Amino acid sequence: MEEKEISQAVVSRLPRYFRYLGELKDEGVERISSQELGERLNLTASQIRQDINCFGGFGQQGYGYNVEYLYDEIGKILGLDRKHNFIIIGAGNLGRALGNYMNFERRGFILRGMFDQDPGLIGREVREVRVRPMEELEDFIRENDIDIAVLTIPKAGAVSVAERLVKTQIRAIWNFAHVDLNVPEGVQVENVHLSDSLMKLSYNIRRYMKEQEET
Amino acid sequence: MEEKEISQAVVSRLPRYFRYLGELKDEGVERISSQELGERLNLTASQIRQDINCFGGFGQQGYGYNVEYLYDEIGKILGLDRKHNFIIIGAGNLGRALGNYMNFERRGFILRGMFDQDPGLIGREVREVRVRPMEELEDFIRENDIDIAVLTIPKAGAVSVAERLVKTQIRAIWNFAHVDLNVPEGVQVENVHLSDSLMKLSYNIRRYMKEQEET
Repeated sequence: MEEKEISQAVVSRLPRYFRYLGELKDEGVERISSQELGERLNLTASQIRQDINCFGGFGQQGYGYNVEYLYDEIGKILGLDRKHNFIIIGAGNLGRALGNYMNFERRGFILRGMFDQDPGLIGREVREVRVRPMEELEDFIRENDIDIAVLTIPKAGAVSVAERLVKTQIRAIWNFAHVDLNVPEGVQVENVHLSDSLMKLSYNIRRYMKEQEET
Repeated sequence: MEEKEISQAVVSRLPRYFRYLGELKDEGVERISSQELGERLNLTASQIRQDINCFGGFGQQGYGYNVEYLYDEIGKILGLDRKHNFIIIGAGNLGRALGNYMNFERRGFILRGMFDQDPGLIGREVREVRVRPMEELEDFIRENDIDIAVLTIPKAGAVSVAERLVKTQIRAIWNFAHVDLNVPEGVQVENVHLSDSLMKLSYNIRRYMKEQEET
């Protein structure tokens, strides 16, 4: 499969395609046109075709897309055909919520360990995964072939923990701490700044109210 | 203040500007040039100037930006100068994590109530906010001037709860359920699909590994 350079905007849409195609597959749908897919996803048919063309073009004129094939191929592009071992650093409510989330496992993301510096949390279990002290971090990563670390600790500790992580074999940090991390090339960071998302919501409420006042 | 039409891309960056300016303010920094701000945010100076020009242009040639003024103005644009009462529907780990997050309150988002259909969770408290049964939802929203509902329930229940919500005075839904909601105009939705973010991470790991193999 020939892959062109894919923009981050397209990459952002891929998980959504993948989710929808998975649902269609579960519903027993075998093929779908770009029109129908577009209607489900609130995108135009030409947008869909353009996106899918970026990474190969799996459609046939007059037939549309084979749902299962497209689902599998997008899964491969997303790297979901291989397993990822991950750890969660920060065993508070958010860390435990993510640790309990079974859907990640279904996608090949396997929770191997949890870490916290709070002695009160160490030894507790989330789905049979024990919370360990921070001292064991580096050894654990090496011995358990961990490639993703999830950061669910307060901002204050996140920068120094990230500095420890980038010295290990870790390939990616999924960052929920409210600070932008600087990491070397080769370590991927995906930030989930929940406050930012809430502020965006607040912006859209205000803008809508303003529009209503003006009309 | 004259506001032009602001694109969602700019809106997405506003919370980050706001966060950084808040940090600068806390550090006692009084003014900053677009160059310096750009370095902090990994954006070019011209990008910064362009963004800030979108909503008025608060800079002065040769002086840069007044940190506190710009912070306050962006806060207003984000609608953070008014309070938002919110409820959380779904009192599991994720709902409790969000309920415990004090930073939201600092930004003017006040948690008023939590709801769940699980009798085992009803009556529990998160920061003195009691978990209520779903039957009380509509009355509670009306009586407590709620404008934001946070959805932290499984996909299966999310659509029907959203249908109940849009019949109330709710202005916005912050959606953590893994389903795209269809709501009428006038109700803002901000989706946080955590799996999508994890898949994006997985994509970037795979892409980087592939690049390494090729070079």
